[in-house]
Amino acid sequence: MALPKIYVALDCQTQEAADNLVSQLPAGKVGLKVGKELFTAIGPDWVKKQVEQGFSVFLDLKFHDIPNTVAKAVTSAAKIGVDIVNVHASGGTEMMSAARDALKQFDKPPLLIAVTVLTSMSDSDLNEIGIQATAEQQVLKLAKLAQQAGLNGVVCSAQEARMLKHDLGTSFKLVTPGIRPANSATGDQKRVMTPEAAIEAGVDYMVIGRPITQAADPTASVAEILTSIGE
Amino acid sequence: MALPKIYVALDCQTQEAADNLVSQLPAGKVGLKVGKELFTAIGPDWVKKQVEQGFSVFLDLKFHDIPNTVAKAVTSAAKIGVDIVNVHASGGTEMMSAARDALKQFDKPPLLIAVTVLTSMSDSDLNEIGIQATAEQQVLKLAKLAQQAGLNGVVCSAQEARMLKHDLGTSFKLVTPGIRPANSATGDQKRVMTPEAAIEAGVDYMVIGRPITQAADPTASVAEILTSIGE
Repeated sequence: MALPKIYVALDCQTQEAADNLVSQLPAGKVGLKVGKELFTAIGPDWVKKQVEQGFSVFLDLKFHDIPNTVAKAVTSAAKIGVDIVNVHASGGTEMMSAARDALKQFDKPPLLIAVTVLTSMSDSDLNEIGIQATAEQQVLKLAKLAQQAGLNGVVCSAQEARMLKHDLGTSFKLVTPGIRPANSATGDQKRVMTPEAAIEAGVDYMVIGRPITQAADPTASVAEILTSIGE
Repeated sequence: MALPKIYVALDCQTQEAADNLVSQLPAGKVGLKVGKELFTAIGPDWVKKQVEQGFSVFLDLKFHDIPNTVAKAVTSAAKIGVDIVNVHASGGTEMMSAARDALKQFDKPPLLIAVTVLTSMSDSDLNEIGIQATAEQQVLKLAKLAQQAGLNGVVCSAQEARMLKHDLGTSFKLVTPGIRPANSATGDQKRVMTPEAAIEAGVDYMVIGRPITQAADPTASVAEILTSIGE
């Protein structure tokens, strides 16, 4: 079964807030993105329950550790039943390959996606940590590294989608945060785009947070966005 | 109360294995390091229980994300009651400062420690991701960045401890994985040292894994190591 095009970012800190939000989302039409904030607060059992209730889950923990630890961490994630899991490409080829190899044991392994450059990082932020390339150059370098390591795709900003689809081919999946309908605020994402433009640019899976989670009516907001991309 | 000098790396994937190991460890004398593998598998409730039973916990999730997410993730971690939490310095100053500011709300905030260069990464691994510096140069650069951002210390290999104590001063804490008594294997850590040598080099907190967790008698192994460092 194809994964949903939209994953709703559950950027909340309590189970009550997460339960309340999820109760307003259509399981068959959108997935749930569970990040560090929520997962650190409530852990894997809650995630398992959403999987059992028919939600596709993107576990957005951006693993970045020694190869052995990342291999076991993605294994733990796959056992929860999530459909997408991510690691930092800046962990290097050895770490990414260890994660890829660890998932081979599963019949239906989650998509293994690499984070290249966080969408909140600018060229000067990269320079500060010793990387002379621009954000765009570094995204392409790390995305190629991830593809060579056998990963399924990358997280990238929508602005980078067209370049990456061109350079890395259509089967290499693009997962894109910072997607916001035309009328919403940018928050701390420095590179944002609308759902329609993202699909047009070749994005496979979109992560949408506050425009849905802080809408007066999240269900209506989801329906509106799904309609805008012909779903 | 001073934190224990030794944190035992609970690199297991099930609660049963973790419970079995913890039952053989002296709560007042060693702390527990909970990494991605175990935390992704069993989550925060188990960690809370160990804190309630008197264990000091180092939550080793190496957060590396946009500033807003890392601020909320370390907040979730502090609410669990852990004593040490870590973030990747390669997330940059903005991310590290957001994490530091988020912890100011707590009376007794956990130590906020930065990961500089993973001890499994060599100079060529760094080069591959676009960093021309050597591992040692990159460690010092990122450690200085972390200190300027107001963090409490860094994770570093024991070989780097003397340099960092010299350059960053004695109050900047050093947490060191890859510590192994003289008679044990190196695994995937590329830079390792004995407990005695680590203390002598200025390490504040040591992370010891397989030499304790895979010993025939973990309790005896802990006692032996504590004796070797005069505890």
